[in-house]
Amino acid sequence: MTAVAPRRSVLAVRGDERRRRRDRLAGEEPMEIRAAGPGQAPAPVAVTMRTPGDDFELAAGFLVTEGLVAPDGVTRAAYCDDVPDEQQRFNVVTITSRARVDEVAQRRVATSACGICGKARLDEVEVACAPLPDGPAVARSTLLGLPGALRARQAVFEDTGGLHAAGVFDVEGRLVALREDVGRHNAVDKVVGAAALAGELPLSERILLVSGRAGFEIVQKAAVAGVPILAAVSAPSSLAAEAAERLGMTLVAFLRGDGFNVYSRPERLVLD
Amino acid sequence: MTAVAPRRSVLAVRGDERRRRRDRLAGEEPMEIRAAGPGQAPAPVAVTMRTPGDDFELAAGFLVTEGLVAPDGVTRAAYCDDVPDEQQRFNVVTITSRARVDEVAQRRVATSACGICGKARLDEVEVACAPLPDGPAVARSTLLGLPGALRARQAVFEDTGGLHAAGVFDVEGRLVALREDVGRHNAVDKVVGAAALAGELPLSERILLVSGRAGFEIVQKAAVAGVPILAAVSAPSSLAAEAAERLGMTLVAFLRGDGFNVYSRPERLVLD
Repeated sequence: MTAVAPRRSVLAVRGDERRRRRDRLAGEEPMEIRAAGPGQAPAPVAVTMRTPGDDFELAAGFLVTEGLVAPDGVTRAAYCDDVPDEQQRFNVVTITSRARVDEVAQRRVATSACGICGKARLDEVEVACAPLPDGPAVARSTLLGLPGALRARQAVFEDTGGLHAAGVFDVEGRLVALREDVGRHNAVDKVVGAAALAGELPLSERILLVSGRAGFEIVQKAAVAGVPILAAVSAPSSLAAEAAERLGMTLVAFLRGDGFNVYSRPERLVLD
Repeated sequence: MTAVAPRRSVLAVRGDERRRRRDRLAGEEPMEIRAAGPGQAPAPVAVTMRTPGDDFELAAGFLVTEGLVAPDGVTRAAYCDDVPDEQQRFNVVTITSRARVDEVAQRRVATSACGICGKARLDEVEVACAPLPDGPAVARSTLLGLPGALRARQAVFEDTGGLHAAGVFDVEGRLVALREDVGRHNAVDKVVGAAALAGELPLSERILLVSGRAGFEIVQKAAVAGVPILAAVSAPSSLAAEAAERLGMTLVAFLRGDGFNVYSRPERLVLD
């Protein structure tokens, strides 16, 4: 099993200086996610390049945020024992769902063959999501403190510079959960999966912060998890802003220094 | 059709100031990629969230770098006319290949159900790639100049802060091609696709620079395109470094300021 941050020999060049040293790199290894409901054999849904660790959370979070398993529907997570060699064993995770997994939806997620325009995608997500609550209300100063709190706890990033982070905060700005991954989406799936496995979904009183950009799929995943406020350190995409507006989510981006931009539903923020 | 950088109303908060304004955001819209060979009906291979523009290049580059179409195998690229509404028309691209498209490989790419450990992935990519040339030799000062040259030409990024870039440079550090996208992989597919459509693959005398991180899939795509030197402004992953070493590619990362790190095959760099 690949480590979270394996060491590797590197030639570091700075000005005229050259030095061989051993650096930590962000671990990356493919993982196959399988799903099974009552009376169903485990079927592969996706392979994702991920940073090993929190594998059950990643698998559970992925299936929940893609709408294949209900937020309270995960009954079991396990590594598979039918793979040919030991190294691959820890790269295949099966999630067992309380309800049957819809095979059409499963094929749709496996082939990404859902809507081929943003509006169709949005319609689908809207149908899959429960409406978000009106609250909570979060103070400007609380928002401004989130990136520092996230960064302070990003242990592996400090070493490797190569991991994205997703953090779940309460409305007072206290960090509730943090996960890191080479993939932006995976970091979000991991925090959502952790909440799913702990029976804590929906995250109706929480803020989700991502260390990078906010694209449509991040908004989708946050919406399925019931997150009312999504914040990103970097830029949003056009479809992310449109989706947040339609789904009733507060989308904050470019959250850095003493400011931020609000793209939708500013009424959950206390700006004075 | 969504614009490359549509405008949207934003509430900008800086310290105690608040201002409504219209900002440009990185355009994002799904696109379906289809492939067809002689005697084959176009079959969907993938849906990717992309920034509209250079759609034929993206589709061609994706199919080439995923090994479904030979580097010199693209004969035609077209929007589809069998989709129900006009908006979706520009979100479906069909690439016609000189040779038949291997249906097993097509299913593999569509479901991402290839190797479930890094070694298996690497074995596959190694089989698919022609060996890289020994050269070229690139001066340290040339390398150090690349990020500035890329950034200076990243028109849409300047507006939106939300786009990744991939740039192809010659060995003197002159920018040959630049493409931007909300997706890191898409930006690489677009520059490779542009070269494929122009009959310029393999890129054996070129340097590829990406504005962000270098994961395994970026190394894979560069290798299929025949790129001997890959540079990234940000961090590499462990599997990216391993893949570059195995494939004989020079991998440079953290290329910024007056330095960089070399993870594999430093012999193509003139460091004095």
